[in-house]
Amino acid sequence: MVGYKFMGKAHTHAYRDLPFYFDTDAVPVLQAIAGRDETGVRGAADKWGFASYETDWRRLIERDDIDLIDIVTPNNTHAEIAIAAAKAGKHVLCEKPLAMSLEEARRMQHAVESAGVVHMLCHNYRFAPAVQFAKQLIDSGRLGRIYHMRAQYLQDWIMDPDFPLVWRLRKEVTGSGALGDIAAHILDLARFLVGEFHNVVSTMETFIRNRPLGEMTSGLQADVDVNGATGDVDVDDAAAFLAHFENGALGVFEATRFAAGNRNGNRFEINGEKGSIRWNLEDMNWLEVYLADDEAGLQGFRRINCTEEVHPYAANYWPAGHIIGYEHTFINLFKELMDGIAKGTNPQPNFSDGVKNQAVLEAVELSAATRQWVSVVQ
Amino acid sequence: MVGYKFMGKAHTHAYRDLPFYFDTDAVPVLQAIAGRDETGVRGAADKWGFASYETDWRRLIERDDIDLIDIVTPNNTHAEIAIAAAKAGKHVLCEKPLAMSLEEARRMQHAVESAGVVHMLCHNYRFAPAVQFAKQLIDSGRLGRIYHMRAQYLQDWIMDPDFPLVWRLRKEVTGSGALGDIAAHILDLARFLVGEFHNVVSTMETFIRNRPLGEMTSGLQADVDVNGATGDVDVDDAAAFLAHFENGALGVFEATRFAAGNRNGNRFEINGEKGSIRWNLEDMNWLEVYLADDEAGLQGFRRINCTEEVHPYAANYWPAGHIIGYEHTFINLFKELMDGIAKGTNPQPNFSDGVKNQAVLEAVELSAATRQWVSVVQ
Amino acid sequence: MVGYKFMGKAHTHAYRDLPFYFDTDAVPVLQAIAGRDETGVRGAADKWGFASYETDWRRLIERDDIDLIDIVTPNNTHAEIAIAAAKAGKHVLCEKPLAMSLEEARRMQHAVESAGVVHMLCHNYRFAPAVQFAKQLIDSGRLGRIYHMRAQYLQDWIMDPDFPLVWRLRKEVTGSGALGDIAAHILDLARFLVGEFHNVVSTMETFIRNRPLGEMTSGLQADVDVNGATGDVDVDDAAAFLAHFENGALGVFEATRFAAGNRNGNRFEINGEKGSIRWNLEDMNWLEVYLADDEAGLQGFRRINCTEEVHPYAANYWPAGHIIGYEHTFINLFKELMDGIAKGTNPQPNFSDGVKNQAVLEAVELSAATRQWVSVVQ
Amino acid sequence: MVGYKFMGKAHTHAYRDLPFYFDTDAVPVLQAIAGRDETGVRGAADKWGFASYETDWRRLIERDDIDLIDIVTPNNTHAEIAIAAAKAGKHVLCEKPLAMSLEEARRMQHAVESAGVVHMLCHNYRFAPAVQFAKQLIDSGRLGRIYHMRAQYLQDWIMDPDFPLVWRLRKEVTGSGALGDIAAHILDLARFLVGEFHNVVSTMETFIRNRPLGEMTSGLQADVDVNGATGDVDVDDAAAFLAHFENGALGVFEATRFAAGNRNGNRFEINGEKGSIRWNLEDMNWLEVYLADDEAGLQGFRRINCTEEVHPYAANYWPAGHIIGYEHTFINLFKELMDGIAKGTNPQPNFSDGVKNQAVLEAVELSAATRQWVSVVQ
Repeated sequence: MVGYKFMGKAHTHAYRDLPFYFDTDAVPVLQAIAGRDETGVRGAADKWGFASYETDWRRLIERDDIDLIDIVTPNNTHAEIAIAAAKAGKHVLCEKPLAMSLEEARRMQHAVESAGVVHMLCHNYRFAPAVQFAKQLIDSGRLGRIYHMRAQYLQDWIMDPDFPLVWRLRKEVTGSGALGDIAAHILDLARFLVGEFHNVVSTMETFIRNRPLGEMTSGLQADVDVNGATGDVDVDDAAAFLAHFENGALGVFEATRFAAGNRNGNRFEINGEKGSIRWNLEDMNWLEVYLADDEAGLQGFRRINCTEEVHPYAANYWPAGHIIGYEHTFINLFKELMDGIAKGTNPQPNFSDGVKNQAVLEAVELSAATRQWVSVVQ
Repeated sequence: MVGYKFMGKAHTHAYRDLPFYFDTDAVPVLQAIAGRDETGVRGAADKWGFASYETDWRRLIERDDIDLIDIVTPNNTHAEIAIAAAKAGKHVLCEKPLAMSLEEARRMQHAVESAGVVHMLCHNYRFAPAVQFAKQLIDSGRLGRIYHMRAQYLQDWIMDPDFPLVWRLRKEVTGSGALGDIAAHILDLARFLVGEFHNVVSTMETFIRNRPLGEMTSGLQADVDVNGATGDVDVDDAAAFLAHFENGALGVFEATRFAAGNRNGNRFEINGEKGSIRWNLEDMNWLEVYLADDEAGLQGFRRINCTEEVHPYAANYWPAGHIIGYEHTFINLFKELMDGIAKGTNPQPNFSDGVKNQAVLEAVELSAATRQWVSVVQ
Repeated sequence: MVGYKFMGKAHTHAYRDLPFYFDTDAVPVLQAIAGRDETGVRGAADKWGFASYETDWRRLIERDDIDLIDIVTPNNTHAEIAIAAAKAGKHVLCEKPLAMSLEEARRMQHAVESAGVVHMLCHNYRFAPAVQFAKQLIDSGRLGRIYHMRAQYLQDWIMDPDFPLVWRLRKEVTGSGALGDIAAHILDLARFLVGEFHNVVSTMETFIRNRPLGEMTSGLQADVDVNGATGDVDVDDAAAFLAHFENGALGVFEATRFAAGNRNGNRFEINGEKGSIRWNLEDMNWLEVYLADDEAGLQGFRRINCTEEVHPYAANYWPAGHIIGYEHTFINLFKELMDGIAKGTNPQPNFSDGVKNQAVLEAVELSAATRQWVSVVQ
Repeated sequence: MVGYKFMGKAHTHAYRDLPFYFDTDAVPVLQAIAGRDETGVRGAADKWGFASYETDWRRLIERDDIDLIDIVTPNNTHAEIAIAAAKAGKHVLCEKPLAMSLEEARRMQHAVESAGVVHMLCHNYRFAPAVQFAKQLIDSGRLGRIYHMRAQYLQDWIMDPDFPLVWRLRKEVTGSGALGDIAAHILDLARFLVGEFHNVVSTMETFIRNRPLGEMTSGLQADVDVNGATGDVDVDDAAAFLAHFENGALGVFEATRFAAGNRNGNRFEINGEKGSIRWNLEDMNWLEVYLADDEAGLQGFRRINCTEEVHPYAANYWPAGHIIGYEHTFINLFKELMDGIAKGTNPQPNFSDGVKNQAVLEAVELSAATRQWVSVVQ
């Protein structure tokens, strides 16, 4: 694994916990972790149970005892690492967004496909059982033709103007702000559930344009630079876009870090000819489902706790009504990754999805810049 | 109408508004209102549009132009007025609880039945469309055998120790506290939806035992006596009881005026062999319904907005999704009252229900006093 | 009153019910109702208690006993009636949207202002107590600078392809579809709560392009033409738009009649520097409020039942926790109208708001046609 | 660990996952697991990562490499194992309910206290961060004097009359039905949050009195005996009781396995002089809090996602808004157990709590049998 902050913690936990819940033919072994700061990476290795550590990720790629490279570093490093890993014949898991640009994403896709390695993109929210169940409902036609998807990813962790200019707010490192970080999740869910995007029109806003310097500590916390220096924010605090899907559905999307009171409000509603569904990450075990063919008088959204044996992945955890949490979305994704590695199949979402997602992100950025509708490159 | 405070307002409004929504063969005319305080009753007559007023309710009963006596006075006056009205051949509507004792209630029932007049008891919450719809579901067997009902009526309007000793807190006037005022509503709903009570065991609590003197002004507000005098509270602040129904269902009931944050939380859940329902007065347009024969994976409580044409009374109001409120429960009840008067039928809930409700109230009081299970007299 | 369908019913009820709840110096009298079909209008007059009827609205305007003209006819008739009424010195209340075009709206505004009559536009949802309370919170600075508003008006009453081509689906009569009918409400709420629009980019969709002929019966129901004839739908089934407000806030709006399970889902969330609010018409008594200065650990959206004495209009109805419904939004608006007439003031929303709303509607339509961002004309 | 079914899985997972999240001085090592069926226990050892297994729990107690005995067997075996373990100087963790009788519980308490070992009782729901936070609020006086607690534990997993007579339905093995299994949880929460019980009055019901023979497989699933034999159910399907607490609060409790649609509905509301709280296991990350001293107009239940750094245990998991699940309640409890072992302190809930809980359970059973109020032995 390359990187050891918030996502490093989430991934490491999932590797450790996976074998308890799932029997997979490939079983993860925490062989090595890499990071530039020796003190930091050694501490992470000790704390999380990695057998060894490296201060240069290239060393990981050279090692024969490593089969899978997991990239949880800032976005501007994904491409170099992933391509090198693929060339070395390593399977690759990469955090989202895949790349800094569509061109970079394509190079990454080409690298993994040429190398014939298994590759996945870590859009973990696809793997909430409720979301997987939503996918089953849509694919089986229970909602009929899809007319609408509206999705928001609402957070509030940088609303304080004194929150510092961490890497997630600097374009050269992160590419974009709310767009690549959280809008990326909802557009991936949109592609997963509704289909491919046709075109978009967008706006991107930066409400606080100057902040103290400083860096992330853990989770979504940060320390401010002690010298009082400040810098300009060059990424978006919020992004919103309208979209048409290839299948004619209409999409309305919004991602922001300025929605007070919404700590992690990733929510969507999809309306189809025969029914509708609603989901919210903060209540991630529940799916609300409306079926238009319910008898008159008894029509209403059902609040379904997706913890039953029939719900995806749920049988591997606890009896009905015993909920799971954020970390389980990673475990479920890693289950697919292990199966992919063991069976040589190519699970989703993978770098191909990363390219398609990047095409949407790039269209959104271009639309914000040109103030035009922009077609999404297929 | 006799009385002109909170309930007087609710009833008067319903008489005025009823003809707009419902075509009934009998149509209410606001002929006269009675109250002891001439200034007060004249003001009410003027404000609410009564054609005349009386300072002695006996005058109402003597008048030939009065067909229906509506009793919205404190509980200790119900019997005398209702019996006199019945003897004079007037139809009678009475606020709940019907009487101060089971014996009194029976005399009232005897009076109206002997006189052959139409009589109703104003348990308006039966007439929320969602509750009527719940009744239809249960009667049609959609929930199967009923195992459980749990109901709470939670309020908080007298939690302040400085709230005065108004008539609703004095036993000689009101009979009991939370029990007769609000537990009466949930046990009436229980009888309506589940069936007759077999036996009960209860406890009744008074948390604040001494209060300033004072009286209700409007709504549930009150003024404190200026002289600083205080008095003892001799009714219950809260009452709770377990119950067995005749049909074997188990009931758990609780009413309190000491549930901070619950302004008017009248809520119940009923569990049957084939499904469950939930309702809450503060969200009175919604009924939550669980049907056990829903297909696996799609089982969950449906939140149904009971404003569709198929829902009871709803077609007379607004299109689906346009909610109604508290006052409409009275309008719906009065619709039944007018139909009863026009057709000579005996709508429910009536004085017979009042007697049965009073039997439950009396059993609850007796149980609290004797600390025994008490059978409900049929 | 001119017109006697769904809105006619809502307005008539409010005129009748207003004096019960509010003491206004001007008191509505149901003097006359006009409609082209004599049978229909006579029936409405009888049923709703109008003293007389006319089959030509021009007769209403000629009559000396009429002070206020209330226009509840299809949108293509608003201008002619309103202008004639104003010229005759009548006060005017008009249903929304004000006009078929911005130019028409301006002529209407000019007419009423020149005539010096009182004029209001019937955006009744401003008058839910929870919405008025939201306005107070925002105006008092409790939310600080506003960053975001997202609002949806979701319905599903025309999703059946066999639902006929009623007047609300024909451009020559209605001007637009979901846009003018329901998006108009949410953009009016946006102007009320957040401020004036700067520019918009939009898309408008028609999912079902051909329908049987037929007409509205009552409420949102309709009968299909018996001959099986069909016609093309030339208005939008759904409209979505992004917006910048003059004050820098970002708006995301969506209105559709194709959101299965949403009978009347008019909902919004506003995020400010110091807090957020959420509201939903189907639960219209509740306002959810998040205050960022709540102490750590105790931060969360409060669900407030806006039925307390301190909430706007609420003291005139019932005690806390006793909810009101759809019809009360009209009563509250009419209270302001009567006060305006009595005092000669100009209550809001009025024709000036109608013009500004129309400017937004026109910008949205233009943007959908030109696929450009369009500035809203001030 | 002794036992390897549903609770065995939950405990094992917590031992494995604990070190990832918490740095404890004592760290669990999965040394050995015991069970009578060699195939079964060997499978569990392999699957869950125990270093060894035994087919007789007595062997565990003899082994020097075992410091802690964790008892997850049916209730009728708890006492013998725990007492033997304590005598051998092993620390003991025991599943709830502690014992089959108050007398047995006392012998167990005596054994662990005489031996000076660390002992805990596995009431894991105390360790939801929201519940711990509720405890902090109450202890700090934020709710003032407590007037009410109402709690329900509602399940529906045995409603099918064909569900077999598993060990959890046989008195000789389990002691009681819903009472010891799930009412035990809510009365433990009551003791934790409100205080000691004074007296109770109860009823216990068995709705389905005869069932096919059969046994639990995994989770809450079961297989029916193939021969079609049946047996009588001699435990309660539901139990309800009223209670007075030592501090004067009034309790209303209900536990049932016949509440259709409630998979795991463990929920409570506590009302105090200055505020109220509500919690529900199925939404276990949320705590609803009402504070009576909030300013007028802004009073309402706040829905708090207890995932902030300031919430108990939450900082060790994920950033705010990233929820945890059922299994984390065990991890948090085990964190306290490890600290207790490392520091020689006696964490709660322990066998002393087990005795007090058992006294309540026994009073409830006695009350149901005698139909009297029963004082809880202290």
